[in-house]
Amino acid sequence: MQKKISLAVIKRLPKYYRYLGELNSKGIDRISSKDLSELMGFTASQIRQDLNNFGGFGQQGYGYNVENLMSEIAKLLGLENNYKAVVIGLGNLGQGLANYETFSDSGFNIVGLFDINPKLIGKSVRGIEIKNIDLMDSFVKSNNVEIAMLCVPKDKASELSEKLCELGIKGIWNFAPIDLKVKNKNVVVENVHLSESLMTLSYRIKNKDL
Amino acid sequence: MQKKISLAVIKRLPKYYRYLGELNSKGIDRISSKDLSELMGFTASQIRQDLNNFGGFGQQGYGYNVENLMSEIAKLLGLENNYKAVVIGLGNLGQGLANYETFSDSGFNIVGLFDINPKLIGKSVRGIEIKNIDLMDSFVKSNNVEIAMLCVPKDKASELSEKLCELGIKGIWNFAPIDLKVKNKNVVVENVHLSESLMTLSYRIKNKDL
Repeated sequence: MQKKISLAVIKRLPKYYRYLGELNSKGIDRISSKDLSELMGFTASQIRQDLNNFGGFGQQGYGYNVENLMSEIAKLLGLENNYKAVVIGLGNLGQGLANYETFSDSGFNIVGLFDINPKLIGKSVRGIEIKNIDLMDSFVKSNNVEIAMLCVPKDKASELSEKLCELGIKGIWNFAPIDLKVKNKNVVVENVHLSESLMTLSYRIKNKDL
Repeated sequence: MQKKISLAVIKRLPKYYRYLGELNSKGIDRISSKDLSELMGFTASQIRQDLNNFGGFGQQGYGYNVENLMSEIAKLLGLENNYKAVVIGLGNLGQGLANYETFSDSGFNIVGLFDINPKLIGKSVRGIEIKNIDLMDSFVKSNNVEIAMLCVPKDKASELSEKLCELGIKGIWNFAPIDLKVKNKNVVVENVHLSESLMTLSYRIKNKDL
């Protein structure tokens, strides 16, 4: 049985996946933990420790098989699940997400777009029509949608997310500037706080001599 | 003199700032570390420890003055600097950033927009015209622009960022899906990896029973 892994390790897995994807696309089929560490800016011991959480994958004297490790990490991350996702709120940010082809490469398929704004309803993004949010309930249910990408104002986010939980959604990727919480403990919420990253940049500019 | 603060603490400061802003907008003028901890989901001891890094700000038996603490954190984060920023690459994501009014509330003023695409050049976002990227150099120099929000494809990001360094930019907020590095050690780079956050969501959906 898999043990509980720290969030810090989990958050590094997508980074491994991204770097291995780049190596793979360059035709590199194996890499030592030392070379991988130089590339990624982690120590080799950190890398071995991280990957040992999941059973290792490396071989002494050989290193890691890039494609194999990539596929193992994809499995760990659940990327082979081919999630169905909807975007709710098609302002610029929502349209940006709907347009972002890398998501489908990673196993996240955007299958529906919903908004409340009559000016947006009927338009299409990447061949998918933006539908009236009134149609969301039946769509999410009948298509077994698992992920909602929430790009609505913060005063709408809580109510909408509770409704999405009732509809059987499994995960909410929230871009509203609040720490969204849902009552249903089986629904996972990941909050993205763009402003916080910008403020971290500001702090680092101000204190760069420290 | 200020000591070196761990990145984990720094990354929590914007979250304090956001919660204090919400309290402030509700007219709440003081809060105990206990109440703040319940609101934010940190322990009270964590909060005291975090804020003690910067000299405390709290008073025994009184708690924190919301407006005062907010203003101290704004200073720590450098938000009073009123940064001038440009957005480079006005695809959907770039337009989303250019449209995001919360940034100017936090002291980040978007003063210029640049793209290479003739279909976008000449259009306006929030009253600012999208200009040809050929005009970026003179604009950044003559306006002393400090922050570049980079929303360009990954194969363009490195070259552009080196040019921005030469032009005297202080910080780059990078949305291209690479760990952008620049030669100039005085320029701060903050990478935003949206896909990684989505993959973390996927991991947590897959392993929610752990």
